Amino acid sequence: MDAFEGVTGIVPAKQGRGVFLRKGQILMVINTYGSQVVDTWAFSSGDLGEFMSMEHSRASMLKVTPGVGDALVTNRRRPILRVMADTSLGVHDTLIAACDRYRYQELGAAPDHANCSDNLTSVLHEFGCEKFAAPCPFNLFMNVNLDGGRVQFLPPVSKPGQSISLRAEMDQVVVMSACPQDITPVNAGCPSDVHFRVSSSG
Amino acid sequence: MDAFEGVTGIVPAKQGRGVFLRKGQILMVINTYGSQVVDTWAFSSGDLGEFMSMEHSRASMLKVTPGVGDALVTNRRRPILRVMADTSLGVHDTLIAACDRYRYQELGAAPDHANCSDNLTSVLHEFGCEKFAAPCPFNLFMNVNLDGGRVQFLPPVSKPGQSISLRAEMDQVVVMSACPQDITPVNAGCPSDVHFRVSSSG
Repeated sequence: MDAFEGVTGIVPAKQGRGVFLRKGQILMVINTYGSQVVDTWAFSSGDLGEFMSMEHSRASMLKVTPGVGDALVTNRRRPILRVMADTSLGVHDTLIAACDRYRYQELGAAPDHANCSDNLTSVLHEFGCEKFAAPCPFNLFMNVNLDGGRVQFLPPVSKPGQSISLRAEMDQVVVMSACPQDITPVNAGCPSDVHFRVSSSG
Repeated sequence: MDAFEGVTGIVPAKQGRGVFLRKGQILMVINTYGSQVVDTWAFSSGDLGEFMSMEHSRASMLKVTPGVGDALVTNRRRPILRVMADTSLGVHDTLIAACDRYRYQELGAAPDHANCSDNLTSVLHEFGCEKFAAPCPFNLFMNVNLDGGRVQFLPPVSKPGQSISLRAEMDQVVVMSACPQDITPVNAGCPSDVHFRVSSSG
């Protein structure tokens, strides 16, 4: 069997990619090498001013992190992506901003260090959208420990080939960034490619 | 002694108000009647595209909720407001979106129910700014329980007259909304006025 059978696309390490989803389609994001965080955004294709919002989703789900069956909602409180399956341990993050040029300045990285916020901007530009403030992403496979109200960044616990499947609840553009963070342990020190699959039935 | 000695202004129940702060000034927000949540936003007066961001602040503070000494930062990771004092128990929220017309639709309220998002828009309009997507607010005195990753909305634990003092780390516009939520227990069922004081030294 072809290892890439059924794969729709790749998000190369440290880069961003976008995909249109029609309502009802399933997006499977596959953590191909096991320790890669994928910053993920979703925008209604009818109006990019309506987008997946972590702060609205937490209020709607009454959970910090969605599980199977939970829907993430937009800033107008409409379901946009629903978790249909998750073969990982379900460790994902809704609390932390995408990395950006300012973060890498703090960390002393080179000025041209790749970052998820600029990846989002680039992909939206490809899709014909002008720049605007990045919403907080849904950080797939990101392992943030919250014990006692402290925020601790840890390496992912996901294993190679584990995946999460999200059903589109409206027509939308999804943007994924294979996080370029190689200074903190967020990607276990080594950003890698991830793959994704779009299907009509999961 | 005049009960309102040193008070700069009032945020009437269910309404929003804005105030300019110069770098170094202290904003004290007083929970006059004890059980009122105050949704709070801050925008750099030099560029309203730079604003206080909860998702960046959590990453910077390495905490879910700021305590005395902690600085909230902007979407460009610069300190904007620092907690200088807090006479409440320190129960505030950084996770939940402002209430909006969509939330009250869900709750079956009248279409003209006041909401914090529209209060923000109205105040920014007064200050000459056009509408844009509301950042996640810093919800002063809001009591959200997170045990086990569940999100539970509870009445405030703050007492009458308790306050939080925030120092401006840059010139800015702060917008406060005395949350109109009277359906869930967020304001103990009864939205009320709050007061605020701006001083140069705390």
